[in-house]
Amino acid sequence: MGAAMVPPMKDLHEFNEHRKRMNERILSCGHQGLKRFWALDSRAYEAGALDEKTLEFMGLTTSMVLKCDDCVTYHLVRLVQLGASDEELYEALNVSLIVGGSITIPHIRRAFETIDACRELQKTDPELKSLL
Amino acid sequence: MGAAMVPPMKDLHEFNEHRKRMNERILSCGHQGLKRFWALDSRAYEAGALDEKTLEFMGLTTSMVLKCDDCVTYHLVRLVQLGASDEELYEALNVSLIVGGSITIPHIRRAFETIDACRELQKTDPELKSLL
Amino acid sequence: MGAAMVPPMKDLHEFNEHRKRMNERILSCGHQGLKRFWALDSRAYEAGALDEKTLEFMGLTTSMVLKCDDCVTYHLVRLVQLGASDEELYEALNVSLIVGGSITIPHIRRAFETIDACRELQKTDPELKSLL
Amino acid sequence: MGAAMVPPMKDLHEFNEHRKRMNERILSCGHQGLKRFWALDSRAYEAGALDEKTLEFMGLTTSMVLKCDDCVTYHLVRLVQLGASDEELYEALNVSLIVGGSITIPHIRRAFETIDACRELQKTDPELKSLL
Amino acid sequence: MGAAMVPPMKDLHEFNEHRKRMNERILSCGHQGLKRFWALDSRAYEAGALDEKTLEFMGLTTSMVLKCDDCVTYHLVRLVQLGASDEELYEALNVSLIVGGSITIPHIRRAFETIDACRELQKTDPELKSLL
Amino acid sequence: MGAAMVPPMKDLHEFNEHRKRMNERILSCGHQGLKRFWALDSRAYEAGALDEKTLEFMGLTTSMVLKCDDCVTYHLVRLVQLGASDEELYEALNVSLIVGGSITIPHIRRAFETIDACRELQKTDPELKSLL
Repeated sequence: MGAAMVPPMKDLHEFNEHRKRMNERILSCGHQGLKRFWALDSRAYEAGALDEKTLEFMGLTTSMVLKCDDCVTYHLVRLVQLGASDEELYEALNVSLIVGGSITIPHIRRAFETIDACRELQKTDPELKSLL
Repeated sequence: MGAAMVPPMKDLHEFNEHRKRMNERILSCGHQGLKRFWALDSRAYEAGALDEKTLEFMGLTTSMVLKCDDCVTYHLVRLVQLGASDEELYEALNVSLIVGGSITIPHIRRAFETIDACRELQKTDPELKSLL
Repeated sequence: MGAAMVPPMKDLHEFNEHRKRMNERILSCGHQGLKRFWALDSRAYEAGALDEKTLEFMGLTTSMVLKCDDCVTYHLVRLVQLGASDEELYEALNVSLIVGGSITIPHIRRAFETIDACRELQKTDPELKSLL
Repeated sequence: MGAAMVPPMKDLHEFNEHRKRMNERILSCGHQGLKRFWALDSRAYEAGALDEKTLEFMGLTTSMVLKCDDCVTYHLVRLVQLGASDEELYEALNVSLIVGGSITIPHIRRAFETIDACRELQKTDPELKSLL
Repeated sequence: MGAAMVPPMKDLHEFNEHRKRMNERILSCGHQGLKRFWALDSRAYEAGALDEKTLEFMGLTTSMVLKCDDCVTYHLVRLVQLGASDEELYEALNVSLIVGGSITIPHIRRAFETIDACRELQKTDPELKSLL
Repeated sequence: MGAAMVPPMKDLHEFNEHRKRMNERILSCGHQGLKRFWALDSRAYEAGALDEKTLEFMGLTTSMVLKCDDCVTYHLVRLVQLGASDEELYEALNVSLIVGGSITIPHIRRAFETIDACRELQKTDPELKSLL
């Protein structure tokens, strides 16, 4: 419910700062396994047989059916950076809703808030360069 | 943990406002599939072979085992509106706890806070008409 | 897919024998915690503020959204024993489908097979006394 | 483990027959909600802002992280029908594995068996017209 | 994201107060089943064939793969009280990450914040006696 | 239900053969990401700050609460190879049951069958060298 009470742009930057700071904390903790998983995770979304946008759409929808708000925010930002349209995003959220059921609805509400925050931020930062 | 820091009645109204505003946002986005799912979702809880209260109890317990706090809040409010007693609500939460395990406990704590907030609100609004 | 290849009545009895044999195995293993959980589990479905049928409907729908075929079979048999009609069962499965999404569909297919097997068995054993 | 013991092509046809027969059983049961959900589900994968293949890749990966073998089989067959290459399918399975973790591995093993069965069937039925 | 905005020690104490207050509320509600489950839950982590630390590590990793932040916080505090080293905690989080996938990453970020808050609190309260 | 119908030892060897054959199939498919994940997965259970047995107990309990029968079978075999006693295994299953709820019961039944099959196999192969 918090997202409704702060200006949306601030929220995306806060999310981004927190994500970056904690990733650095974890990657410098000295555990090789954690570090390698982080690397594998990044590489999974790099273009290969499938293009980046298709891979990110899989990231978005799997995150949604597993109800991970932070993961959904991340993939929505990436998809907006890659030029996804609102209609494409809505269609992906619709697949997630059908697959995952009404239990995804609160997360879909927050996803729409994130999409709106991205579009607002694009007015001054069209490629969302200030994020991720 | 937020619910502990604000007066409980305000929290229920904030939840309600956010839910309503975002539902309107989604239903006016132009995607037919999302709209139809929302309609199917509402219809699933309308009395048919089973009465409304039994259907809402299924909504409550399935939401609890899938650990969806917002869904639990919604169904608790509906059940209080339909006249469910504390004892009935506790029994339903107990089934959820047995089925879903200790992992539901933090959500059961929050459900008790919501029940208490509903009972508090009923002192001035007995049928919770100000909600949903 | 197995259920489609054996006569359905045999399947219900096999399920029942396996469930009984393994429960006995577990309850005689000497671990108090397991034994107490089994007792708590049974008690959760005994009539209290809510009647047995409502409690079983919660058991059915929570099992369905958590995609537990064996649990679904158990609660369907119990509900048929308690006199639930096909229409009531379909309505409960519909709530599960809305809450849990299309991912429940394979389990709903198997639930319909179980309902049909129960109705078939009722021709010679109207109260399903040979089960559970 | 069964899939390893029967010739793979027979398995795909058995899956298909069972799926079709039970869908018919459910759609003729008289419950409007179930019928409408089935329709919404089909429509979610029809080309709109996103093409059919991208939508099916979302269906595949969400099914995999939710560990639904039957759903995975369905979307793999559809993707092979739409011309997806092995490399594309492996990349999608890799995203699912990263998102869903090692717990998806048994389902990924079965997905590889399904891919191999599809490629085998394509030798006599290149567009898998005998399925779905 | 809230944890990043308040001093970490305060957060652990708030978590602790809320947990205690709501446990008391639930245990005094008069429902025997809930009370017995709480008792079974405590007993499950008492040393028997396995020592307390091993049992708590199972509590931590199962909570993490089921993405329950409050449960993770609880088991991390317990493990620090039992003398677990950072290296042991990181290794347990690594197993959770491998088993549960990238979807656990936001929860692993918050777990690292909790570990850091515990280490900070240990400067003035070495055995975390002010918690749990 | 199948496990009840075949001699248990044969079942463990079949599981083992299938697992090995499909792992080889996947690791030779040419996708680097899949190969690296398999390596990371193996390494996560190698002794470091925590010993092998503790790591395997985490593997067992996380697999159980995520209801992955094949993963549970694998970790039970590993734990028996590492000398775990029945009492230790029962205690770990009890933690899983408390955390994951009654929905794990069918999987706990199958876990007991696997334990019994391992003990039977140990009569001729005390260290289960014929497995994994």
